[in-house]
Amino acid sequence: MTSARRRPRVVVAPDSFKGSATAAEVAEAMAAGVRAALGVPGAPEADVRVVPFADGGEGTLDGLLGAWRSTPRVVRATDALGRPVEARWGRAPDGAVAVVEAAEANGLPQVSDVRLQPLAATTRGVGTVVRAALATGCPELLLCIGGSATTDGGAGLLRELGVRFLDADGRDLPDGGGALGRLDRIDASGLDPRAAAVRWRIACDVRNPLVGERGAAAVFGPQKGAGPADVRVLDAGLRRLAAALLEATGVDVADLPGAGAAGGLPAGLHALLGAELAPGGELVADAVGLADLVADADLVLTGEGRLDGQSFHGKVVDTVRRLTPAHVPVVAVAGSVSATVEEIDAAGLTAAFSIARGPATLDELRASTVDAVTAATAQVVRVWLRGWAPPG
Amino acid sequence: MTSARRRPRVVVAPDSFKGSATAAEVAEAMAAGVRAALGVPGAPEADVRVVPFADGGEGTLDGLLGAWRSTPRVVRATDALGRPVEARWGRAPDGAVAVVEAAEANGLPQVSDVRLQPLAATTRGVGTVVRAALATGCPELLLCIGGSATTDGGAGLLRELGVRFLDADGRDLPDGGGALGRLDRIDASGLDPRAAAVRWRIACDVRNPLVGERGAAAVFGPQKGAGPADVRVLDAGLRRLAAALLEATGVDVADLPGAGAAGGLPAGLHALLGAELAPGGELVADAVGLADLVADADLVLTGEGRLDGQSFHGKVVDTVRRLTPAHVPVVAVAGSVSATVEEIDAAGLTAAFSIARGPATLDELRASTVDAVTAATAQVVRVWLRGWAPPG
Repeated sequence: MTSARRRPRVVVAPDSFKGSATAAEVAEAMAAGVRAALGVPGAPEADVRVVPFADGGEGTLDGLLGAWRSTPRVVRATDALGRPVEARWGRAPDGAVAVVEAAEANGLPQVSDVRLQPLAATTRGVGTVVRAALATGCPELLLCIGGSATTDGGAGLLRELGVRFLDADGRDLPDGGGALGRLDRIDASGLDPRAAAVRWRIACDVRNPLVGERGAAAVFGPQKGAGPADVRVLDAGLRRLAAALLEATGVDVADLPGAGAAGGLPAGLHALLGAELAPGGELVADAVGLADLVADADLVLTGEGRLDGQSFHGKVVDTVRRLTPAHVPVVAVAGSVSATVEEIDAAGLTAAFSIARGPATLDELRASTVDAVTAATAQVVRVWLRGWAPPG
Repeated sequence: MTSARRRPRVVVAPDSFKGSATAAEVAEAMAAGVRAALGVPGAPEADVRVVPFADGGEGTLDGLLGAWRSTPRVVRATDALGRPVEARWGRAPDGAVAVVEAAEANGLPQVSDVRLQPLAATTRGVGTVVRAALATGCPELLLCIGGSATTDGGAGLLRELGVRFLDADGRDLPDGGGALGRLDRIDASGLDPRAAAVRWRIACDVRNPLVGERGAAAVFGPQKGAGPADVRVLDAGLRRLAAALLEATGVDVADLPGAGAAGGLPAGLHALLGAELAPGGELVADAVGLADLVADADLVLTGEGRLDGQSFHGKVVDTVRRLTPAHVPVVAVAGSVSATVEEIDAAGLTAAFSIARGPATLDELRASTVDAVTAATAQVVRVWLRGWAPPG
């Protein structure tokens, strides 16, 4: 329960406004609005808890670094085509979790300067980043896998951790999903013990299986440059990988929901290392300790660039609402709100407001996002502060 | 004080969104939003008090008719050029006040189909409407005077009430401000006693004097078709009128702030009948009994089409705030809000929200005004209902 005598506790946990402002920028803008409404420009941090957020997709690393107020580690790795790249990763201040955003080393944008090579593209560089993270002894590794250029079933990553992928003659296969069709067996005897000791959690919001018409090659291959023939080769390779993993571990990943994400990257990690697949929002929420932050909040503010009727499931706004006690109001501030009053209510949100203050173009709204978020948040909090009944 | 046990009392008192929706339409849309937020589609009227509002300018008659839930009376009158016109006027359900919008009989739009005749234009038709109102025995007459085509100092109106405007030979002057230069004296001996008995209140938001460079002829004459020579004639006529009124009543209206409104219409009414000039918003608020309605409210919602830093003084939003007890939050919903957070706060408003929900053109906002007002109001009330502290 709250009391009007003490200062209200407000948590701001927005996603980024994609194309307009990062989650950290939006969160600070919201916090400024809260403080303006509270009339205390230098309000103690304890009253306004700033939690830049993310949904586990691209930008999650930045979101977590912002939430942790920590700077990124940088490691020399390779991109999906084996070219040198500086890859960033992050570590929680208490060292409890390291976050690796795979796209830092196997991202599609990095290799869009040359002709895409869907059969050769490898996650080996991701393995290099993972090794750097393991070296710090974090007990948990959070792997975000969106935006990849690879369809190698995570083979390159596992190679970097000591796993061997052998053909019928016992020779190591070359990198890339195109070679997996010749996979005879997997030798995990050389697996880095630190990789086996750490808790693996993979942020995964798609449910696609590893193989078949809804699999990694068929659904995501084309956007990575795979023609029909390539798709057939890659799908056959991933089938071989699933069979070899089953033989080596007894775990069948062929039909595992989400195993088809990021070119099958989760498949081997799940079978060999017990990696858990979970919605990104939940994993990020754990990583920033959101549940504890909102547990005794009086008001929780969240938001994203665009709030429509479909945007709730698995999104930041949805995660924040689910983790917040039912008696605590959750209000969203968004660039645009196309969700109906009924959809907002059904999502469990108290209300949702746009930052728009009148007629405006998308470009105008984007150019004024930070100030407009502050202004809108201040208005919302002012109404809340003069509200009818105490929460609960 | 309020208690969460009883149902909250919400008053909605918006102005029209000019060009988009009438005050009555906006008020009903707001009420629908309040009910949606309260989750009681058939909520008793006692909980949501709907007060369509106006600022005393054009549209005030419609606003009051909406607030009173009454239909307009219609009387055959004449326009500023003496042509037949059907003029509307209104009467409070309790008969305590009648409202006459002068422009129904001397409006500029009515005569814009022909060449304007600034010297001949007369308020006689307004007098016809006033007589119809006086015939019902209302103790108070609220006269709204915006948008007139006349500069006759109200002489035509007073003629209809029995006042004579005589030249040096004792002959009645013809209608129109152009003849007032030959005014010798005023004979009020035939004044309709009902006109003398009623309380006259004129909604007047301009402070211009009757004559001189800031007077009725110089400032407003040109927009009524008066060229430089006409302006000189009309100003001289109004000076004669002021002198004759002073001689007849001992009251000097030459420098009375507001006497220059609507072609000097208030001048004679003030000198001969003690008509009070007051800001339109205040008179309308009295006419609808707003002070009583908001006295025990828990939340007051107001709004207008465009809320900017300059739009508070004398506007509906300002009047509503001033009449509402300080401990009761007042929230504005507007088509667009360009006022800063500081200006909103300085105006005493708890908050102000736009109906915009994202990028949109003015036409798009106008087309969706009613639904958007309902949606925005519902969001505001939902936050208020889950608020931090009870009012007061």
